[in-house]
Amino acid sequence: MIITCSDTRTPDTDTSGQLIRKLLKENGHTIAAYHLVKDEPAEIKARITEGAANDSVQAIIINGGTGISRRDSTFEAVDAMLEKRLDGFGEVFRFLTYEEIGSPAIMSRATAGIINGRVLFSTPGSENAVRLAMEKLILPELGHLVKELTK
Amino acid sequence: MIITCSDTRTPDTDTSGQLIRKLLKENGHTIAAYHLVKDEPAEIKARITEGAANDSVQAIIINGGTGISRRDSTFEAVDAMLEKRLDGFGEVFRFLTYEEIGSPAIMSRATAGIINGRVLFSTPGSENAVRLAMEKLILPELGHLVKELTK
Amino acid sequence: MIITCSDTRTPDTDTSGQLIRKLLKENGHTIAAYHLVKDEPAEIKARITEGAANDSVQAIIINGGTGISRRDSTFEAVDAMLEKRLDGFGEVFRFLTYEEIGSPAIMSRATAGIINGRVLFSTPGSENAVRLAMEKLILPELGHLVKELTK
Amino acid sequence: MIITCSDTRTPDTDTSGQLIRKLLKENGHTIAAYHLVKDEPAEIKARITEGAANDSVQAIIINGGTGISRRDSTFEAVDAMLEKRLDGFGEVFRFLTYEEIGSPAIMSRATAGIINGRVLFSTPGSENAVRLAMEKLILPELGHLVKELTK
Amino acid sequence: MIITCSDTRTPDTDTSGQLIRKLLKENGHTIAAYHLVKDEPAEIKARITEGAANDSVQAIIINGGTGISRRDSTFEAVDAMLEKRLDGFGEVFRFLTYEEIGSPAIMSRATAGIINGRVLFSTPGSENAVRLAMEKLILPELGHLVKELTK
Amino acid sequence: MIITCSDTRTPDTDTSGQLIRKLLKENGHTIAAYHLVKDEPAEIKARITEGAANDSVQAIIINGGTGISRRDSTFEAVDAMLEKRLDGFGEVFRFLTYEEIGSPAIMSRATAGIINGRVLFSTPGSENAVRLAMEKLILPELGHLVKELTK
Repeated sequence: MIITCSDTRTPDTDTSGQLIRKLLKENGHTIAAYHLVKDEPAEIKARITEGAANDSVQAIIINGGTGISRRDSTFEAVDAMLEKRLDGFGEVFRFLTYEEIGSPAIMSRATAGIINGRVLFSTPGSENAVRLAMEKLILPELGHLVKELTK
Repeated sequence: MIITCSDTRTPDTDTSGQLIRKLLKENGHTIAAYHLVKDEPAEIKARITEGAANDSVQAIIINGGTGISRRDSTFEAVDAMLEKRLDGFGEVFRFLTYEEIGSPAIMSRATAGIINGRVLFSTPGSENAVRLAMEKLILPELGHLVKELTK
Repeated sequence: MIITCSDTRTPDTDTSGQLIRKLLKENGHTIAAYHLVKDEPAEIKARITEGAANDSVQAIIINGGTGISRRDSTFEAVDAMLEKRLDGFGEVFRFLTYEEIGSPAIMSRATAGIINGRVLFSTPGSENAVRLAMEKLILPELGHLVKELTK
Repeated sequence: MIITCSDTRTPDTDTSGQLIRKLLKENGHTIAAYHLVKDEPAEIKARITEGAANDSVQAIIINGGTGISRRDSTFEAVDAMLEKRLDGFGEVFRFLTYEEIGSPAIMSRATAGIINGRVLFSTPGSENAVRLAMEKLILPELGHLVKELTK
Repeated sequence: MIITCSDTRTPDTDTSGQLIRKLLKENGHTIAAYHLVKDEPAEIKARITEGAANDSVQAIIINGGTGISRRDSTFEAVDAMLEKRLDGFGEVFRFLTYEEIGSPAIMSRATAGIINGRVLFSTPGSENAVRLAMEKLILPELGHLVKELTK
Repeated sequence: MIITCSDTRTPDTDTSGQLIRKLLKENGHTIAAYHLVKDEPAEIKARITEGAANDSVQAIIINGGTGISRRDSTFEAVDAMLEKRLDGFGEVFRFLTYEEIGSPAIMSRATAGIINGRVLFSTPGSENAVRLAMEKLILPELGHLVKELTK
């Protein structure tokens, strides 16, 4: 399940959401659902809850809303819902970002964890951030993570 | 949605679940779903997540698992999922229980709150506790609570 | 310091804020500041921070925003800022409310605690609730609490 | 195990600690240990950890340090260590205190819960508070609680 | 606003505080206030509250008290007050520290986040740590962060 | 004190536990106790509590149970008990792991912190992970950490 959090994008201009879809498909995954929501905690939580209750959803990939402006609420929404935190994803993502672009890396609040037996990743909304997270971390580990969670 | 948490009851012997169903029906409510689960945090959370994502569910009423033995995990499971806590339900429930049966009231961990726009109540598993909670607190306030949540 | 949280009241129609002011004055207290804010967590937190940093403020009394509708955010804003929680205020307030009006008592999320050496009370926005909280609990204990906090 | 938290009492002047000991003995309980500590979070936590690791200890009863002055740190120390909270003890204790002495009841931060399979009660330090908590709530339920925890 | 947390330094020997001031000035920033406080949670919190309520303060930079000895309490004081956590600052700071000095990097509890619309950074108290944090991370991002927060 | 969390290992097949013991001895440390426990939160917490109350224990080193499958509960058990978190250990451990093996690094939930004046490290259960953590981070800092904690 793909969720894009943005106050300004439309499905047509949501190139980051499209990139996630394309990369998942190229790697043999099926997209159970795609949602574009405003940066509203209640909306984000509702979509996550929906995905976490859907038998066809094994992973939830969210992009956008990870910054620190008043409207950025994805991190808080996600953090409050996770049953298990997977801090390593955000850490390694920021370490790789630092190596690419330097100090702006500290401003991203990418995060990951487990909710109701599904893995959830939350990345920044930019295409570069999405590509880095997907290619270096999410795609290589997705199969392994899903298998661990069904043990 | 009704959830009974018990390691020993079956649908036939779940008289507390049946009582909740009967009282809700008598008061004009529809039962969207009924589940009997073991006292396992993962199972309880999965059912709550399911209810919280179901458009036909406006309230989730859980009974059982509120004690303090090693197997009682309903309170922790629920507490971690609530977006807004409604401490007053547990407090007034224990105050009424104290007036009825005295000091054992302190051992009940009844609780309530809001999850994804639905109200959730968690009561002890005994028929007496369920009847007290339903008749004195839940049934009189259910309509009002649901209306507030859809504002 | 008095804070009224309301999306609809004006200083003129804020009879609950006026009642708090009147009762405090009648009991010999000075009003360091009065603010009417929208039910926005950021605004509520900003005013509490202001009060907690003001040497003329010994207590912060907030009314409104304690319900459970989507706009009611006072409880969460306050709860996240308290250094010490004083759960007894909300509990006894709801117990007294239950004795007066019965089951609606469970819907109030009145709370209290300590922030930066000041005591903070948060009550519902209705005049009846404010009068009950002020006369039965806050006014009798305010002097004692302030003295304890300056020890 | 009995812990008294006080900056001023000595074993000789700790009449509240003596009262707990006397009441426990009269009710057939054995005192595994008794400690008088300063109102220092680190000291209080060290003694609780000790009791929670001691096979002869089935319950930990703490008195003192539940107020709101700068030195009162028992509530925070205990609250951070509890694995399961038993909110009902503090609530009913404050309700009974309110009936006896009125509004000062809101200032007590009595609490209880479970740590490593032992029940822990924390009461105010005054003899009246200790007597009320022991006679009305702790002594009548202690046997039942210990039995539940060994299930 | 600059806060130095130290039990031993004086304004004259607080070379780390002086370094922060110098680096901020050289980069065109104005120093709204400077405070030297003991490693006492209550004092640290009081100064942070003050800064967070001050219209002239856009950022709070704290040094010292990030270690793990009993007196080091800055991390806990700050962590409890942050409305939004900016984990990336501490992570990248420790990663850079590891590259410079190796394993001692794990002992620093540098952290950052948002409080009442201001960004707050907390660094270790040594001059080397302060210089690293300021030059590599804080100074390059300060302008951007403040702009994001006023959106 | 060494704790191995594993549902499948025996003392004979616990090569990771043996490796920790060997490395500690080679570096002049004494092993106060060694325990092999199932991946059960209650068992893990009981052993940690025991170590935290033992005057001969200055450090607790746990291996195993840091993954994300349903049975992996070490992270949650440990995280709930820590009085001070030492996030840097897990971060730098994952950064070093990433450099060695790439993306699987994000799946480890290694962590560290302070409990009752003792330092606690929690590493994954594989021999490679244990060797990396011990040689690069724990052994070089253990003496320093213990000294800091007795200040």
